[in-house]
Amino acid sequence: MDLKEAGIGDGISEIIVTTKSASGMPNAAPIGIITEINEEGERKHFVKLYKGSQTLANVLETTMLAANVTDDAVIFVKTVFEHLSEVHFADFASMPVLTEANAWIVFKSVLIEERSDYLHFQVLPRAVKINRKEVKAINRGLNAVIEAAILATRYDVTTDAREKKEMGKLMERYAEIVKKCGGRREKEAMGILMDKFPFISKINKN
Amino acid sequence: MDLKEAGIGDGISEIIVTTKSASGMPNAAPIGIITEINEEGERKHFVKLYKGSQTLANVLETTMLAANVTDDAVIFVKTVFEHLSEVHFADFASMPVLTEANAWIVFKSVLIEERSDYLHFQVLPRAVKINRKEVKAINRGLNAVIEAAILATRYDVTTDAREKKEMGKLMERYAEIVKKCGGRREKEAMGILMDKFPFISKINKN
Repeated sequence: MDLKEAGIGDGISEIIVTTKSASGMPNAAPIGIITEINEEGERKHFVKLYKGSQTLANVLETTMLAANVTDDAVIFVKTVFEHLSEVHFADFASMPVLTEANAWIVFKSVLIEERSDYLHFQVLPRAVKINRKEVKAINRGLNAVIEAAILATRYDVTTDAREKKEMGKLMERYAEIVKKCGGRREKEAMGILMDKFPFISKINKN
Repeated sequence: MDLKEAGIGDGISEIIVTTKSASGMPNAAPIGIITEINEEGERKHFVKLYKGSQTLANVLETTMLAANVTDDAVIFVKTVFEHLSEVHFADFASMPVLTEANAWIVFKSVLIEERSDYLHFQVLPRAVKINRKEVKAINRGLNAVIEAAILATRYDVTTDAREKKEMGKLMERYAEIVKKCGGRREKEAMGILMDKFPFISKINKN
């Protein structure tokens, strides 16, 4: 099953992973799916699920996860900081998925390695659905939101003052890119981030 | 004519602009198309064309330009530093376009303002063709290449030593993102950039 058609290219694909607990409670969070291509052109897919995350807890209970391919900046930022309400979820191949995603891929996970802070799984595609194909030009604001959101998740757990200052500077730089290049969804997403990190607002709200 | 379907959303869309001289010589270069939506929901598109660029010279001669919507990192980097050979060009509505692009939009330009370093045009769509729709997950490496390429174009003209050091640090950071997250096209594109800026290679080639 070649997932390129469904948006999962080589390298790391940033997607929203949806899972459910054994009792059926859905969860959504942004993660990267790592795709490696060997010399025979075979593709293998992997994920690292961090200890303490709801995604890992659910995968350990059910072994299943779904990748939701989307380029909606707001969904990425929301799933970093908030629980998505049930209205965002649909059902596909007995898994919760995001209604608005462009494609869904349901995977079975196979544990291959345990590390101190994460578990490393190979993931095997079991069902694929493409909902919407489109043409979209690169928007620098979209990835600036993603980069700022990644920094945001690390900012609060970083204790080194110099590193923290560096992260703050980068986040301000990304906020400037969103202000200059972003569309409405990117600006809305950056607004959500700024509410969590008010120091970005100083440069972004005037 | 709503260009969203052809990949030109609100904010700034990064595309490859193709133009031709009065004598018919084609040229390609990366630029941003600025899309503004007014309160009635009407979309207007603008470009800033920098003095000294071949794109501006051609637009002044012919008034026409074509936007090529693509997410191929290699094409972006190549058109920053090199002349594309004729094999890359096709013909659409009497304009040169890039064979591989996902969509083409031919615009007529109307000068609205002259600034010290650029001319500001409104661009009016005259012909649109969608070649290929797809689903594609966000890849952090793709935009890291774009950001590094933008820095690269500024690096050589920057004289302030501190600013130059800061740019170098950012380029190394983007090279790290490409190394970690990029697919083959992103890595190939970063390779082209590294050949121009060997100091990036130190961190990226091991």
